[in-house]
Amino acid sequence: MSRPDELVVGILGGMGPAATVDLLEKIVASSGAVRDQDHLHLIVDCNPKVPNRNEALDGTGPSPAPQLVAMARRLEAAGADFLAMACITAHAWAAEIRAAVGIPFVSIVEETATEVARLVPPGTPCGVLAAQGARRARLWERALEAIDRPAIVPDAAEQARFMELLYRIKAGDMGAEVRAATAALARTLVERGARLVVAGCTEVPLVLGPADCPVPLVDASEVLARAIVAYARRERPLPARAARSGS
Amino acid sequence: MSRPDELVVGILGGMGPAATVDLLEKIVASSGAVRDQDHLHLIVDCNPKVPNRNEALDGTGPSPAPQLVAMARRLEAAGADFLAMACITAHAWAAEIRAAVGIPFVSIVEETATEVARLVPPGTPCGVLAAQGARRARLWERALEAIDRPAIVPDAAEQARFMELLYRIKAGDMGAEVRAATAALARTLVERGARLVVAGCTEVPLVLGPADCPVPLVDASEVLARAIVAYARRERPLPARAARSGS
Repeated sequence: MSRPDELVVGILGGMGPAATVDLLEKIVASSGAVRDQDHLHLIVDCNPKVPNRNEALDGTGPSPAPQLVAMARRLEAAGADFLAMACITAHAWAAEIRAAVGIPFVSIVEETATEVARLVPPGTPCGVLAAQGARRARLWERALEAIDRPAIVPDAAEQARFMELLYRIKAGDMGAEVRAATAALARTLVERGARLVVAGCTEVPLVLGPADCPVPLVDASEVLARAIVAYARRERPLPARAARSGS
Repeated sequence: MSRPDELVVGILGGMGPAATVDLLEKIVASSGAVRDQDHLHLIVDCNPKVPNRNEALDGTGPSPAPQLVAMARRLEAAGADFLAMACITAHAWAAEIRAAVGIPFVSIVEETATEVARLVPPGTPCGVLAAQGARRARLWERALEAIDRPAIVPDAAEQARFMELLYRIKAGDMGAEVRAATAALARTLVERGARLVVAGCTEVPLVLGPADCPVPLVDASEVLARAIVAYARRERPLPARAARSGS
């Protein structure tokens, strides 16, 4: 049924566009809607022109912060009641986004950590496949530390391999080779003790499904999609506006 | 490579959301992009709260025009250089949208008619599967008449059947039964002389592919996606701002 009290969702997207489409699909699927009018009102700024987040965090490219802030403000001006972002590495600038707008920002990292805390007890080692920039900003390491689930991450060579795969996915290559190599990286984390794996980059679920992973796979995009639906329908209270540092 | 002179695309969507996601996927796939930054900047107002277009055209529900106009203006204010809409029936209010903004509006109906004119010679009967509202507004009938390709459309009973299928698709049912029934309707148009079938509702390509149709199937969403990419990259001039009546 139609819910006039539903909130309008603003999504910072385009990083990359396929990951944004994947998130939108998951929101549509999570809505349990029968008629068009039962779905959420989403305003999506799918802006792939945002500078490369990994290069910025490596110090080899410009900061995406000015563009992310401009997108957040545009979405607020267009009528969004709260914001979310379909790129995990860009959450390194979550504090700047939160400071720039008067509406709440829902963090995919915080939502996923909450889900992980629901799924496995404290002390459980959790594998994370994440982009280099997210690693450098320690987004997942800090979020998992905060809930006392130690992060198991790729070593330097594996991380370099993952970045190669990530740029192939962004270039549209979601073929068998990329899928097999991503699954192999997930299995490496499991061999190293991970009892759960977080698809900690929004491109990962494009090539890795639960069947490819010998332990439970937590798809951060899926978690964010469900959280967005719950917040928009006011089934749970939105996070406070106060900025939490860098996630 | 990055194209600083690319145009920003504003998309009126959410009618329904799955059809909008389908259009976005087709835009991403049509972009031939290698890096995130090669993709188009899209601003999408995915607003499923727009009143039912078929009911409005049947005289049994409120007009969606005020909401469509508000969406178009919001997208213009957010920075869109031109507009397109991921719902064909809503093109019955194209004139109102065009009158409300200072940027061009690309019509999925006009773009598809141009594609049909490229594919088959004048006089070729073309089947169209379209929603009741689009039928009532004669969107396809007039567009095909204008290029001298007679429209072959379902009869009243078949149209009622199509509307049942359409609302099932909108409710998320894209199962084998819906697919088979949609394909059967397409075949009926072919048996009646259609030498080409237009998927003339943005939900149709969600359940009907070229393999399901014994004659060439023109997917209006696919045509619009390619047109959007070409316009945004300035590979072709945008349509003049002057309103063409009701398409």
